Amino acid sequence: MDRDGHSAALGGEGLRGQSAGRTALCTVGKSGTGLTYRGYDITDLAHHAEFEEVAYLLLKGKLPTRTELAGYKTTLIGYRGLPLALKAVLEQIPANAHPMDVMRTGCSMLGNLEQEQDFHEEYDKADRLLALLPAIICYWYRYSHHGVRIETYCDEESIGGYFLKMLTDESPSTLHKNVMHCSLILYAEHEFNASTFAARVCASTLSDIYSCVCSAIGTLRGPLHGGANEAAMAMIEQWATPDDAEAGILAMLENKEKIMGFGHAIYRESDPRNALIKRWAAELSKDAEHPELYAVSERVEAVMKREKNLFCNADFFHASAYHFMGIPTKLFTPIFVMSRVTGWAAHVFEQREHNRIIRPSADYTGPESQPWVEIDERV
Amino acid sequence: MDRDGHSAALGGEGLRGQSAGRTALCTVGKSGTGLTYRGYDITDLAHHAEFEEVAYLLLKGKLPTRTELAGYKTTLIGYRGLPLALKAVLEQIPANAHPMDVMRTGCSMLGNLEQEQDFHEEYDKADRLLALLPAIICYWYRYSHHGVRIETYCDEESIGGYFLKMLTDESPSTLHKNVMHCSLILYAEHEFNASTFAARVCASTLSDIYSCVCSAIGTLRGPLHGGANEAAMAMIEQWATPDDAEAGILAMLENKEKIMGFGHAIYRESDPRNALIKRWAAELSKDAEHPELYAVSERVEAVMKREKNLFCNADFFHASAYHFMGIPTKLFTPIFVMSRVTGWAAHVFEQREHNRIIRPSADYTGPESQPWVEIDERV
Repeated sequence: MDRDGHSAALGGEGLRGQSAGRTALCTVGKSGTGLTYRGYDITDLAHHAEFEEVAYLLLKGKLPTRTELAGYKTTLIGYRGLPLALKAVLEQIPANAHPMDVMRTGCSMLGNLEQEQDFHEEYDKADRLLALLPAIICYWYRYSHHGVRIETYCDEESIGGYFLKMLTDESPSTLHKNVMHCSLILYAEHEFNASTFAARVCASTLSDIYSCVCSAIGTLRGPLHGGANEAAMAMIEQWATPDDAEAGILAMLENKEKIMGFGHAIYRESDPRNALIKRWAAELSKDAEHPELYAVSERVEAVMKREKNLFCNADFFHASAYHFMGIPTKLFTPIFVMSRVTGWAAHVFEQREHNRIIRPSADYTGPESQPWVEIDERV
Repeated sequence: MDRDGHSAALGGEGLRGQSAGRTALCTVGKSGTGLTYRGYDITDLAHHAEFEEVAYLLLKGKLPTRTELAGYKTTLIGYRGLPLALKAVLEQIPANAHPMDVMRTGCSMLGNLEQEQDFHEEYDKADRLLALLPAIICYWYRYSHHGVRIETYCDEESIGGYFLKMLTDESPSTLHKNVMHCSLILYAEHEFNASTFAARVCASTLSDIYSCVCSAIGTLRGPLHGGANEAAMAMIEQWATPDDAEAGILAMLENKEKIMGFGHAIYRESDPRNALIKRWAAELSKDAEHPELYAVSERVEAVMKREKNLFCNADFFHASAYHFMGIPTKLFTPIFVMSRVTGWAAHVFEQREHNRIIRPSADYTGPESQPWVEIDERV
């Protein structure tokens, strides 16, 4: 049995290692560690680019010139207005709802109001979603938790900064904006992961882009996919010191509990995204209210390496980084959506380009042919 | 190139013939023609069962006794009340929205209001969706098109009859209820079709059932999957006589236009569901306002057989049957949802039983490693 409780008898399940199509967007773990978007190494992108450059790269196929980037940012800023009917829907969603259900519902409602009538509109619809998903989650969060109806139009230049501004009403620092650029870049794309594959299955019937993104959001919602950064946060915030953390982890390992934020289905040696976000978590800890969370996280990393030879994946140091910026834990996975919508949309475009409906077969394990039984003869 | 515009160079696309898991629910085309649900032949089910018996068979694993069936119907009737917040959301959706977007949004909103907290609730949540999806579409339709707020609680015994009652305010005839039983049985389940596979991909991350059903609805929405009965209706209603229809079809074939409602990805000789719904279309035509639609449909069937050796699939005679019962064409695919939600939910239960996250690989066709280019050096 593997970690998903699967016995190896039937090979088809999970489709691990089986090709389900082609992509020009991404390579994952080609050298055991690497991640590239359209051939660019994730480390170069995280060190040098803004998130909007990476979104442009994924959605339009190349890195933008300075003029193109400025124009693209202006477009996105112009798309931040929430339709009245969508605000009314968000106001109906209670504070105890799952934030990923809010994202899925917001996206679905937008599909009613601004239908994709023709695939020529796909770039425009993707940009609108990219601009509006932060507004959707923040509008709901602020209304349901604080009773405030926020104005979502705002000229903050970056998507990450815009999210922080909508959440707190305060203009974020340059440091916080830079962390958000890095974070959104790291989460933007990851080949045929489950949520992206869900978007492609939906796209393969030639459905509209909102349906594809709703499928992806719903799939990312599952605890085996998104949500690891939230689970990591819930774990590390239990511990006040690195020694507490070490004792806690050892006890969890003893009880065979799952430690979230470690290991990966594809990467074998390390996750290239870990070093990139970890650097920012360290930087943020310097001015943080509870800087010990970073030392706690580092100790967990060291213990997991020593005891299980497992490495941190992208999610683990995201937990402390987001926390240091004051982001509520329940909004961690929605940030993943704000970023990954670029990869999802780019995959939808690709699927439409070379489409064949995705319709696999199944191994039948049910009863052989059964004769009809009249209702009074049943047991 | 096949009909989906796919060139055969890369084998993985579409996953045709590749196993993606196991199921005990359904066999499709094992003998080239057959369809079974848990081993029962579709012809037996369509001739002898009510839809609620088939829903019970798919969801609970066996045909119900008389007492179990009565109890099940009582449960479903009790689940027909729409939450106020869901009504408020449906009232925000304009009349020109795509009805499948309404179904997806209604399901998504319900997920916010009645979250699946634990997989032990899965049967109950599936029953609630089965009971409520007709209410969702009818509440929106009647409000947006007629300005009427309908009362969705109603003790009409069958789901098909309930849908017709909500749509028209009139108690449906026995004939119409029987046709709906047959129609909903025929559409209930079809192995790893694209929408069901989408539900399983979503389930494989251990996401909640509303996310799975939203993914499925969005995937069914595409014109290569659901919607063929609507397209067939739009085609046949152009023609006043069988001779008109024959001339029209010949002209369409000459222009290489796609004729909807014919052929199938899996069945090679015939679709077993066609004869079953065709019989009811014939019966309904006797009292219909425009009975010639049946003769038109029969002629189209004959011409397609003669000219292309293609057979009608489940969708073709559904068009005239639904039309004869006064159902607006735009609501044809939502009826498919009301039925298939049983198969989708049963597949979600199965996926959870033997789960492995569905995460295939891709053939990379993009650029090789690219060095970073500073923004002012880009073209």
